[in-house]
Amino acid sequence: MTYCIGLCLDQGLVFLADTRTNAGVDQIGTFRKLSIFQKDKDRFFVLMSSGNLAITQAVKEILLQGELFDGINLWNAKSSHEAATVVGCAVKKVREHDHEALQKSGIEFNCNLIFGGQVKGEKPRLFNIYAAGNFIETTPETPYFQIGESKYGKPILDRVIRFNTPLNLATKCVLISMDSTIKSNISVGLPLDLVVYDKDTFKLDRVITIDEDNPYFEMMRGIWGDKLKEVALSIPEPSWNGSKKTISIQSPSKRL
Amino acid sequence: MTYCIGLCLDQGLVFLADTRTNAGVDQIGTFRKLSIFQKDKDRFFVLMSSGNLAITQAVKEILLQGELFDGINLWNAKSSHEAATVVGCAVKKVREHDHEALQKSGIEFNCNLIFGGQVKGEKPRLFNIYAAGNFIETTPETPYFQIGESKYGKPILDRVIRFNTPLNLATKCVLISMDSTIKSNISVGLPLDLVVYDKDTFKLDRVITIDEDNPYFEMMRGIWGDKLKEVALSIPEPSWNGSKKTISIQSPSKRL
Repeated sequence: MTYCIGLCLDQGLVFLADTRTNAGVDQIGTFRKLSIFQKDKDRFFVLMSSGNLAITQAVKEILLQGELFDGINLWNAKSSHEAATVVGCAVKKVREHDHEALQKSGIEFNCNLIFGGQVKGEKPRLFNIYAAGNFIETTPETPYFQIGESKYGKPILDRVIRFNTPLNLATKCVLISMDSTIKSNISVGLPLDLVVYDKDTFKLDRVITIDEDNPYFEMMRGIWGDKLKEVALSIPEPSWNGSKKTISIQSPSKRL
Repeated sequence: MTYCIGLCLDQGLVFLADTRTNAGVDQIGTFRKLSIFQKDKDRFFVLMSSGNLAITQAVKEILLQGELFDGINLWNAKSSHEAATVVGCAVKKVREHDHEALQKSGIEFNCNLIFGGQVKGEKPRLFNIYAAGNFIETTPETPYFQIGESKYGKPILDRVIRFNTPLNLATKCVLISMDSTIKSNISVGLPLDLVVYDKDTFKLDRVITIDEDNPYFEMMRGIWGDKLKEVALSIPEPSWNGSKKTISIQSPSKRL
């Protein structure tokens, strides 16, 4: 399995991906699922993938080779949207090439991508590209995408992430979301690849890999676990009005 | 969909179930999924169900009728384990009766149950009964079961619930787990049925239905949402050591 999160916020972009792959519990591997595409200072893109690794690696290779679709590749696309179309075309090309053989082996064409970045002259943009090669884009109302094992880590995103959430808080939030997923599902695991991008800078100087020895992640996990319990403890205890079959707060003054 | 949680803790039992059913987004209903079985003061059982409502209601009816399996029903079973076997037999009976017709309609025999309670002379016990009628029981290491839409609400249980967690904290925790699920998945919804049982009392005086007007649940949701954000804010911000591609905490003194 896999878990990747991408955010497109007012201040910029955040990408976080785990690196665990598995084909059954006895075939666990570590593969990068986050790739950065940057040559010049007029653009950069990040691609994160879930699904069949052979398919997603093939897509990445096509993009890296700079293959042209209708004369366009990632390096000359006029917008992030055009670049997303190129990624979609790469997915379709892999499908055309492998679909029949996969079908014969009873394997689904499983490929789900988060793709985003910034092209000079535009705001940062973020897309979720499907196995059919078509895609959707974030909006200020829904500024994030998840792919892979997304449910465990969704509540914290739903509660905290808004379009105007500052990048540092958003970074903490995606790390917590990932940690919750790792804790609940053995098929998602460290190390993690994290990219945090301040809009309009075209500099990718906050790109890191977080492994088990990372003191920040270690600290964050500890604090989060402890404080979560503290918060649960701090909520007033329920008091029970026996026969009325109702539950009420102990101290009415604490009622919100 | 459905979400139910059952806890078997040192101090007693906690059961929480939502009441939403859906067959597609245009067929949403409200049905009780939590049933209490009690006649005399020597025993009580609670059954929570997910899956095909026609199947789970048929199982419940068999149990309510007191049908005997090898001479045993819920009212004369010598232990909770024997009672769970009776429930398993009821599931098998419904399968025998309906399986063929369901198969012809292309419908899976979908039935997942949480069943627990206490029989005099024993500790409280809790079981997860599968569609095949067989079951597993909680242990102190894994004192809870979830059925239905379980992923969104699992992280909070994993972080807080231990065998020795007091019943009040556990109650808050399952309500938070349910709230997180409701927030992230439209197919789980209010009202909720909650049972909290102190072991060895054989009294079910904490049985309530929580609807949208419940002030305690309302308060809890508010506090939880706000505090979660506060905790995320309270975690030290990441500071970035540019070229080293590492992330570290801002104030080393706060390092855990």
